[in-house]
Amino acid sequence: MSPLRIDGLQYCNWSRRIFEEMRAGGLDAVHATVSYHENFRQTVRHLVDWRQRFRDHADLILFARDGDDLARAQASGRTAIFLGLQTPMPIEDDIGLVEILFELGVRFQQITYNNQSLLGCGWMEREDSGVTRMGREAIAEMNRLGMLADLSHAGERTTLETIAASRRPVVVSHANPRWRRDTARNVSKRVMQALAESGGFIGLSLYPAHLPEGSATTLRQFAEMAAEAAEIVGVNHLGIGSDLCQDQPDSVVRWMREGRWTRPDAEAIAFPQQPQWFRSNLDFPGLAEGLADVGFRDDEIAQVLGGAWADFIAQNVGKPG
Amino acid sequence: MSPLRIDGLQYCNWSRRIFEEMRAGGLDAVHATVSYHENFRQTVRHLVDWRQRFRDHADLILFARDGDDLARAQASGRTAIFLGLQTPMPIEDDIGLVEILFELGVRFQQITYNNQSLLGCGWMEREDSGVTRMGREAIAEMNRLGMLADLSHAGERTTLETIAASRRPVVVSHANPRWRRDTARNVSKRVMQALAESGGFIGLSLYPAHLPEGSATTLRQFAEMAAEAAEIVGVNHLGIGSDLCQDQPDSVVRWMREGRWTRPDAEAIAFPQQPQWFRSNLDFPGLAEGLADVGFRDDEIAQVLGGAWADFIAQNVGKPG
Repeated sequence: MSPLRIDGLQYCNWSRRIFEEMRAGGLDAVHATVSYHENFRQTVRHLVDWRQRFRDHADLILFARDGDDLARAQASGRTAIFLGLQTPMPIEDDIGLVEILFELGVRFQQITYNNQSLLGCGWMEREDSGVTRMGREAIAEMNRLGMLADLSHAGERTTLETIAASRRPVVVSHANPRWRRDTARNVSKRVMQALAESGGFIGLSLYPAHLPEGSATTLRQFAEMAAEAAEIVGVNHLGIGSDLCQDQPDSVVRWMREGRWTRPDAEAIAFPQQPQWFRSNLDFPGLAEGLADVGFRDDEIAQVLGGAWADFIAQNVGKPG
Repeated sequence: MSPLRIDGLQYCNWSRRIFEEMRAGGLDAVHATVSYHENFRQTVRHLVDWRQRFRDHADLILFARDGDDLARAQASGRTAIFLGLQTPMPIEDDIGLVEILFELGVRFQQITYNNQSLLGCGWMEREDSGVTRMGREAIAEMNRLGMLADLSHAGERTTLETIAASRRPVVVSHANPRWRRDTARNVSKRVMQALAESGGFIGLSLYPAHLPEGSATTLRQFAEMAAEAAEIVGVNHLGIGSDLCQDQPDSVVRWMREGRWTRPDAEAIAFPQQPQWFRSNLDFPGLAEGLADVGFRDDEIAQVLGGAWADFIAQNVGKPG
């Protein structure tokens, strides 16, 4: 079989066309965001919609719960969709909902989004007080079940404390090295080292706000950044988490940023334009050339574009540990 | 192995003592009510509590989802607990929640309780207009998944229309022949015949309000009633659904009857006293003697006390069809 291609985060306006593009782009697996600020009940409604998508497009995608499902997807020429949550609002203040959502197929759970959550602190708060009491309970529960704690959007202290508190490796599914784009949304060298030491994982983002030169970032700049990341975490713990939000209306970026926690900002909010070399799943294979140009060997490219995610998922997702 | 003993409905105030009594009474399986008028979110909290019970009392009970789990329980000397809902409030107005609750382990779903529901009509309404539009959708979904439609508490027309609409056999998990206790809560000969013709199932109730002489009913009277039921549905489609509500405070019978749909009745409401020969799971084996006294053969007793439920569950519960 050809090398695996996996995207560690997308939140597209799902349609048959997008699933067809996943196949055309050779994507074996995608981690798809189910909810941002939605509560448990609203999240369950999204999970109902996903079940309908899996039935309607069973020729293109399948509902993935562990590495076996990923292998099954590859063997049958389909894309394995892993489901995840970008805030912990769906578990509300009920630790039992971690297990319930796990049973319903959720495999990635962000500790927080941009703000303080019940579990930990986001990168946009003035002060990050670290992992909360419930946060420690939730991390233990995720460890027990095989649900990944995802630290994308978390503050530095919350990120480091989660890495320390977690019995199993954690992920930053979609972020970039901070020294290439100086925003607290990206991860510091210290965080990357802590990830490396704990067997954790980072997926590099292709969202303009995380890229060195925004929408104008070149593929070469992206690849150079990947090379620097690989020096720290190694190609076996490095992947892609594109943060692709294809076909979404701008109201969605407002929902992501403002949820229900603030009155709507009068300012217009719009999705930034993607770099011209990464606008859909069709562009995923093209990343290989960029990586090759900065010196990645073929086996290293295979790891970064999917092999490393596949190994990590096989070990850490969906199975008790 | 000894003959199977199965109770088709209990709603006890669950405790280790009650699970120990299930074992002492030789119960291989019990269908346990999870919710009455609780909505989806509240039901999920009860399902969380059940997961804790299964962990805390793993030496006595196990979480059963199909006939294989029942066999596993028998082989390991434990009681298989099947979960069910006595109203369709947990699915709200969202057909997708049938599948979600199925995935979370629910295996019995009553079409309604005493009142009109979104699916059908209960026995206490003035007029029963039959299965609703959503009711037909829900029945089809239950059929697809392997969740039993339970017609206990349903009105006559809703019951007959559900039997006709359902592609797979349905149950009346806990009710008695109406001619022995004339209440619309019990089932008519016509309903029993329709159940018999469709391969359906009835579990005989030991709740005083359903018994010929209430709390004073003798074991012999119960057994005579069972013999009459067997003449219509046959011992392969007849079982027990005791409706045992052991250790519940009287506030629970108020919740069952009044839910949130009426202002509390000023009248005191209390659970009736159980017949002295059926007060807990310890009394279950004693039913055999009563059945023998009215002429049931040993193989027939084995069917009525559990064998018939086991066969029915193996064919109709938890597996697509």
